[in-house]
Amino acid sequence: MKKLINNPEEVVRETVRGFALAHSSIVVAEEEPPFFVRRKDAPVDGKVALVSGGGSGHEPLHAGFVGAGMLDAAVPGPVFTSPTPDPILAAAKAVDAGAGVLFIVKNYTGDVLNFETAADLALAEGIEVESVIVDDDVAVKDSLFTAGRRGVAGTLLVEKIAGAAAERGDDLASVAEVARRVNGKTRSMGLALTPCTVPHAGEPSFTLDDDEIEIGIGIHGEPGRERIGIEPADRLVDRLLDPILEDLPYERDDRVAVLVNGMGGTPGSELYIVYRRVAEVLAERGIHVERSLVGDYVTSLEMQGVSITLLQLDDELAELFDAPVNTASLRWGV
Amino acid sequence: MKKLINNPEEVVRETVRGFALAHSSIVVAEEEPPFFVRRKDAPVDGKVALVSGGGSGHEPLHAGFVGAGMLDAAVPGPVFTSPTPDPILAAAKAVDAGAGVLFIVKNYTGDVLNFETAADLALAEGIEVESVIVDDDVAVKDSLFTAGRRGVAGTLLVEKIAGAAAERGDDLASVAEVARRVNGKTRSMGLALTPCTVPHAGEPSFTLDDDEIEIGIGIHGEPGRERIGIEPADRLVDRLLDPILEDLPYERDDRVAVLVNGMGGTPGSELYIVYRRVAEVLAERGIHVERSLVGDYVTSLEMQGVSITLLQLDDELAELFDAPVNTASLRWGV
Repeated sequence: MKKLINNPEEVVRETVRGFALAHSSIVVAEEEPPFFVRRKDAPVDGKVALVSGGGSGHEPLHAGFVGAGMLDAAVPGPVFTSPTPDPILAAAKAVDAGAGVLFIVKNYTGDVLNFETAADLALAEGIEVESVIVDDDVAVKDSLFTAGRRGVAGTLLVEKIAGAAAERGDDLASVAEVARRVNGKTRSMGLALTPCTVPHAGEPSFTLDDDEIEIGIGIHGEPGRERIGIEPADRLVDRLLDPILEDLPYERDDRVAVLVNGMGGTPGSELYIVYRRVAEVLAERGIHVERSLVGDYVTSLEMQGVSITLLQLDDELAELFDAPVNTASLRWGV
Repeated sequence: MKKLINNPEEVVRETVRGFALAHSSIVVAEEEPPFFVRRKDAPVDGKVALVSGGGSGHEPLHAGFVGAGMLDAAVPGPVFTSPTPDPILAAAKAVDAGAGVLFIVKNYTGDVLNFETAADLALAEGIEVESVIVDDDVAVKDSLFTAGRRGVAGTLLVEKIAGAAAERGDDLASVAEVARRVNGKTRSMGLALTPCTVPHAGEPSFTLDDDEIEIGIGIHGEPGRERIGIEPADRLVDRLLDPILEDLPYERDDRVAVLVNGMGGTPGSELYIVYRRVAEVLAERGIHVERSLVGDYVTSLEMQGVSITLLQLDDELAELFDAPVNTASLRWGV
């Protein structure tokens, strides 16, 4: 295993320390347990606070999206392992300004359970909590880590848009409603060319032959729909985009935001080749791409691969998407 | 070779098409030869125009840095191969507003020659041109592709700061002077954990055993100083940082900008582990980190590895670094 790490057991702690040092104008890291990252100016008077988190290894998700207009705190667990309720509770208490806290939880059994427990504990301490489960992955119904669909790159869009709703002053119920609306209009699917290696495991979490591609991969390297041989990028894009389009479904004259997300080890050039095909197919179908993001946002360590996410937009969601955001990994309007 | 591509010969064209579609509010691509990407609102009245370019495969360099406050045009050659003078000349003519054009050229023999020829041709057409050669890599004096030091990730800082000088209205000689000053105060060095594969070659450009790391790697996979076994990240950082610090040298009470640059396939978490060690060492030495960037900016396709760049700041350079920029891959203040 070749990685730019020191002790495998210290990967998350050292990552968060470096992250907090590099972005000290935006975030503060609580480095001792309970371990979390919060917006530097949190709690923000009168604002609903957004807390997310989950296993590490998906950087920049979630810490990279902490800041004005998006998350108030992120709780990183060990690599590919949910954080326990304690740091989730501590993060909620640290950022709650009295207007309540929204938990944004990717649909994995461990995350759902631990955020639920933290919500109960917070409630017992007088903090109002709503939870939104993100389950945008159309690839499989259940997987190694989930009952129901997995939460993948669409989480970024839920965090961005709900964050903007909180920033404009919406109350907790309204922010939660916006988050659920975004999740309901978002669909994703991904593929992998290579596996990834969890540092403390030291071995790839699965194997792919030199001529194999995993279609419908999960963000922890869990299996998807099928393994196929090498194909041109355009054909691979169609294999992701067709199930996405059919699922909501997305239809002629729909307005959409497109996220082409690298899994960590994919060259930027390849993400743009993928984006090009997505844009062509949507244009052929009469679907209007009004917003787009291309880059590494929700990753699986050094995995080579890509996921495609569509969000059906309306005027309000487009306006919230465009609202100013000031985080380490998403920044505009400031 | 597993890549998200269609025809290997079309990789650059399809990348640029996807890039231009994804960022149509910022850039326009001239897709037929002469092939280049320009700022959408170029030529900008009264402003010195900045043109850079070079072989593709280093995305987001250079097209990702086209936009207000940075480059007016980028000229992508084939993967790891210099563009010819024709598209460089065409780009210069397209963005020149009468105030002259600055060529920012990484120090590789082909790039230097082709930009020189383009400058001569532009001059013959009445366009004033200055050229700045970037040669920030301290790893080796000469390499497979260069006479003298190579231009690597420091190019980003030259483009950002000279771009800000042009945007505030400096004349051509002044913008060129700022660019040369940045290059003179910038030093970089990188390492690779894995090789990369040029699409039309189909085979890795070099090989590294499972327990080997190349110290001083070039951005085309060309050899560096030495091959060593696996070491902790902190020790690897020291192997890059020590030669950088000694070279200028950077000394106690210096103010610096730090760029920790991923080579394309490196997880974000590892870049932050590296940044953490850089920040610690500089703090121990009494060197003040005033600005920092961590991410994939100057890459080598899917190579896993990292480079470290330091820039010695003064008040003017810090102010120009902070000036608004609106490009696909670097955006703030707008």
